[in-house]
Amino acid sequence: MTVELITIGAELLSGHTLNTNAQFIGDQLALAGVALARQISIPDDHEAIVAAIRESLGRADWVIVSGGLGPTNDDVTKKAIARVFHRTLVFHDEILTALKERYARLGREPGPYLDTQAVQPADAEFIPNELGSAAGIILTDGGKWLAAVPGVPREMQPMISDHIVPKIAAQAKTSVLSRTWSTTSWPESRLYAALESLIRDLPDVSVAFLPSELGVKLRFSARGADAHAALERFARDVRPRLENALYAEEDIGLEAVVGLMLREKQMTICVAESCTGGLLAKRLTDVSGASSYVVSGYVVYANRAKTELLGMDPELIERHGAVSEPVARAMAEGALARTRADCAIAITGIAGPDGGTPEKPVGLIWLAIAIKGAETTAREIRLMGNREMIRARAAQAGLNMLRLRLLGE
Amino acid sequence: MTVELITIGAELLSGHTLNTNAQFIGDQLALAGVALARQISIPDDHEAIVAAIRESLGRADWVIVSGGLGPTNDDVTKKAIARVFHRTLVFHDEILTALKERYARLGREPGPYLDTQAVQPADAEFIPNELGSAAGIILTDGGKWLAAVPGVPREMQPMISDHIVPKIAAQAKTSVLSRTWSTTSWPESRLYAALESLIRDLPDVSVAFLPSELGVKLRFSARGADAHAALERFARDVRPRLENALYAEEDIGLEAVVGLMLREKQMTICVAESCTGGLLAKRLTDVSGASSYVVSGYVVYANRAKTELLGMDPELIERHGAVSEPVARAMAEGALARTRADCAIAITGIAGPDGGTPEKPVGLIWLAIAIKGAETTAREIRLMGNREMIRARAAQAGLNMLRLRLLGE
Repeated sequence: MTVELITIGAELLSGHTLNTNAQFIGDQLALAGVALARQISIPDDHEAIVAAIRESLGRADWVIVSGGLGPTNDDVTKKAIARVFHRTLVFHDEILTALKERYARLGREPGPYLDTQAVQPADAEFIPNELGSAAGIILTDGGKWLAAVPGVPREMQPMISDHIVPKIAAQAKTSVLSRTWSTTSWPESRLYAALESLIRDLPDVSVAFLPSELGVKLRFSARGADAHAALERFARDVRPRLENALYAEEDIGLEAVVGLMLREKQMTICVAESCTGGLLAKRLTDVSGASSYVVSGYVVYANRAKTELLGMDPELIERHGAVSEPVARAMAEGALARTRADCAIAITGIAGPDGGTPEKPVGLIWLAIAIKGAETTAREIRLMGNREMIRARAAQAGLNMLRLRLLGE
Repeated sequence: MTVELITIGAELLSGHTLNTNAQFIGDQLALAGVALARQISIPDDHEAIVAAIRESLGRADWVIVSGGLGPTNDDVTKKAIARVFHRTLVFHDEILTALKERYARLGREPGPYLDTQAVQPADAEFIPNELGSAAGIILTDGGKWLAAVPGVPREMQPMISDHIVPKIAAQAKTSVLSRTWSTTSWPESRLYAALESLIRDLPDVSVAFLPSELGVKLRFSARGADAHAALERFARDVRPRLENALYAEEDIGLEAVVGLMLREKQMTICVAESCTGGLLAKRLTDVSGASSYVVSGYVVYANRAKTELLGMDPELIERHGAVSEPVARAMAEGALARTRADCAIAITGIAGPDGGTPEKPVGLIWLAIAIKGAETTAREIRLMGNREMIRARAAQAGLNMLRLRLLGE
């Protein structure tokens, strides 16, 4: 079963609008075990749409078209569909009557051009639009299927989820199972090397590496009746190879995992951060309900703030520099002492682009973890990238260092 | 001049990743006066890539390909390009040496497969990658051009902006001038209403509204010999209509503008934030060089932190609640007193999804600005959206409130 998606709109090509419809439709299909083979964006131009639909119908069993159904762009999609499928455009009085009744019921004035919404290609199936005036359309010819939906996300989404994807999945008779695991601290190449032989030996499971600045998500998928068993076997073999890079056997942020660990251990946390400038505290409080374990954070950007807010000995900074092991330790311990939290993460480093020296280059970060009643640990890391990437990775490394400490490693 | 874009990656079709690269590249081309005619997403599959490149080269003068250059997907894009252009793949020792030197300089161990990054199609031009290991590629044959860039946004973006788009624009001989202005606090509809008659009366300037969670950027473009004069005239007429929603006559973040104002006035700043949890401090320190004016930040997420770190009277919270005008004022004044900065922004609010009540619903935010020697001001705002959006907008509103205070409004 091959499916292609054509998203229509000049705003998708000019950088004006992010194509969230393509993501939604791809995700809904993937969840149903159907892979989207291709996605194409074209402007709302009759000839371009006709050409794209013809090409996609040549390759795919199903073509989904989104956009270009509204009255303001002259219903360009319906005209193109009618031409490709050699259908006349028919005026449906019952559609217009239903639209008028709905507007009356809502006490709203219909916009101009309502009539054009009642004109549809002949012999099509309609999908009602609960939130707008443009109906969805499904038609078929010679074993090929086409569905057209509006471009407005909230009108399009129920049509895709409730009508079109179930229809495609029923035809495809697919049963794909997939799992997403979350890793951090290993580059994609190291993960790949760790899994390479397994990927080769277990070809019934396909693996996708989904990297971001914060780590790599791994998605395993398997098809057919044995999918569940294949995934279980794969998971069992993959787990030890990932060592401590694997932080969750689901698709979740590290801040949520650290939050769960703190909740379980009934520990509270505070942070002291310099180069990340608030990002570490922001990450921890991205989690709804973080107020039960996050006490506070110190953004001690200036050296003066390090000494005044955290009570650090100014000589420590003078002697070792603000980016150093003793300062990172003193930040973590100072924050812990002042807030009476159970643990603290401290980060100090050089995010750049300025401020680097040959001895302390941009990307040099010192992390420290202080835990009440335990010894403070510190670690140096070196990060690549621009200012934003270095800050993002430093915060992630701080969270991960605490995770490993709480795991007892 | 026709340009098509092929974005490669199964993650773009499975709904896992939003295609921000397509938006960025479309936007950069539009800025240079070149329209993207088509965008295509396909999986990292050799045959699919070969077919898509051939089709696009048949229609377009330039084809840009992003993704599939990393070592783990077997450099599938390079192999496809080599096949389409009938080029051999050549090992470039100088690329490997340069990569190894960079890793050595950073004191980091390169991952495996570094060698594959030195294998490139013959007779190609390379675009250096400052932030990763995969170089960009440009090649040409029979009057057609192809550029391939990595899929990692931070690595791809400078290649597109600094190398590929200028090259396309130079060939296209378009002479589009455009300016981007930055606004905040007005919705797109209000901006449109303010500019509507002007857009109608000055048709030689086209206007794009580029909304985000933090505000709307306005892009004015004009073509031809009179473009400069047309933009000047338009700018002169637009300026007063935007009132104080306009914060910069360039494309820049509000944190940078506030930073410049603080530098100019030789003022230092601290922040005290509750619901934004570090995001406000993070925004201020996103600016390189912020250490000259950012002293520190308090993330006082728990009520205990508000009283202990900022010396707030616990009765104030008991009587008015943590999200209230008196608490916002006390946060700003407490931070100012403790850090001896010249000004302070305080934010307290309910970011949700939990914690709302009928009297204090999710989205209710209190902001306060304290300035040394001046009266503290406070303001209530109500924001819509999910947790992330509310936090982002609250931090933006805090920065904007300080901007307006510093402007003397």
